[in-house]
Amino acid sequence: MMLNKRQYREAQKRALEYMEKAGVVLSEKEKENISVADFGLSDLVHQGGQILTFFNTSRLSAKIIVLFPWQILPEHWHPAIENDIGKEEIMRVRWGEIYLYVPGEPTPHPRARIPLEERENFTVWYEVILKPGDQYIIPPKTVHWFQAGRNGAVIDDYSSTARDLQDGFTNPRIVRETQIVEEG
Amino acid sequence: MMLNKRQYREAQKRALEYMEKAGVVLSEKEKENISVADFGLSDLVHQGGQILTFFNTSRLSAKIIVLFPWQILPEHWHPAIENDIGKEEIMRVRWGEIYLYVPGEPTPHPRARIPLEERENFTVWYEVILKPGDQYIIPPKTVHWFQAGRNGAVIDDYSSTARDLQDGFTNPRIVRETQIVEEG
Repeated sequence: MMLNKRQYREAQKRALEYMEKAGVVLSEKEKENISVADFGLSDLVHQGGQILTFFNTSRLSAKIIVLFPWQILPEHWHPAIENDIGKEEIMRVRWGEIYLYVPGEPTPHPRARIPLEERENFTVWYEVILKPGDQYIIPPKTVHWFQAGRNGAVIDDYSSTARDLQDGFTNPRIVRETQIVEEG
Repeated sequence: MMLNKRQYREAQKRALEYMEKAGVVLSEKEKENISVADFGLSDLVHQGGQILTFFNTSRLSAKIIVLFPWQILPEHWHPAIENDIGKEEIMRVRWGEIYLYVPGEPTPHPRARIPLEERENFTVWYEVILKPGDQYIIPPKTVHWFQAGRNGAVIDDYSSTARDLQDGFTNPRIVRETQIVEEG
């Protein structure tokens, strides 16, 4: 249920390489601040996300999300919290390709590949394919998940205020906050 | 108080070249939708902006703003409108350099170059220099203006809902909506 420091740093470094390939311009400080989310599953190869937050104010947020090839950002939603009706999110692909899944008629032959034992943790199957320059609006409280294609993906993620730790997840094993341990 | 179609199309085309140089990825439809704002001054060389809106929802907006070398986006602010306390805006430079001016102690030797006869239309002179990867939050109702440096600039502009036609401008001659006329 955790990553060790080496795994964490390797994912940071690799995510930075993807961002640079996609032409994302970062300050030196930002380069050190890429966060790696394993969602408590310790299985970045299949599920996780590498996230750089540009800003998160009381109204607005913007992030870059990097997904490695076939990496899944697990199914979740942004609930209403106090005076907020829930986060509105707009994803715009800058590089690579993603398969986004939202509520609707299940797509007969979806492109996503998920580990068989994880199947029950993915409940929405209407597929939206997003390529560079494509964008999609995810309304508050809407269940969604997405997976990068074979080359990975770099995504501009625009939203109202992000409260990531309060997101809801379908998979009951998920812990949003990444635990890092010393190697040993 | 207007641009002719040729001037408009030339500015669109040139703005697209800047966006491509900066690595902005656009859909084919977006490439046709770059808007050119002359603010009714018919003087794009000195004042104006080329703007591509990615989206503008009831909560969020994102744009790319291109300024040509030394082009000024004239002094303005985003007022409170009905239930909105005023647009919050975050500018992040992707390419080139801008000189942003906001309320505060006037900077003694500002880098901006403005036509002498326009001097009275610029009232805030605290200078913030923004280079690639730098960003700045402009709170609601805050008077501000900015100018590109010698190479021009490409800016990621994140905000709450944009209501451009209701912005306030210091220069009383400004008309926010661009008028286009046939050549002749």
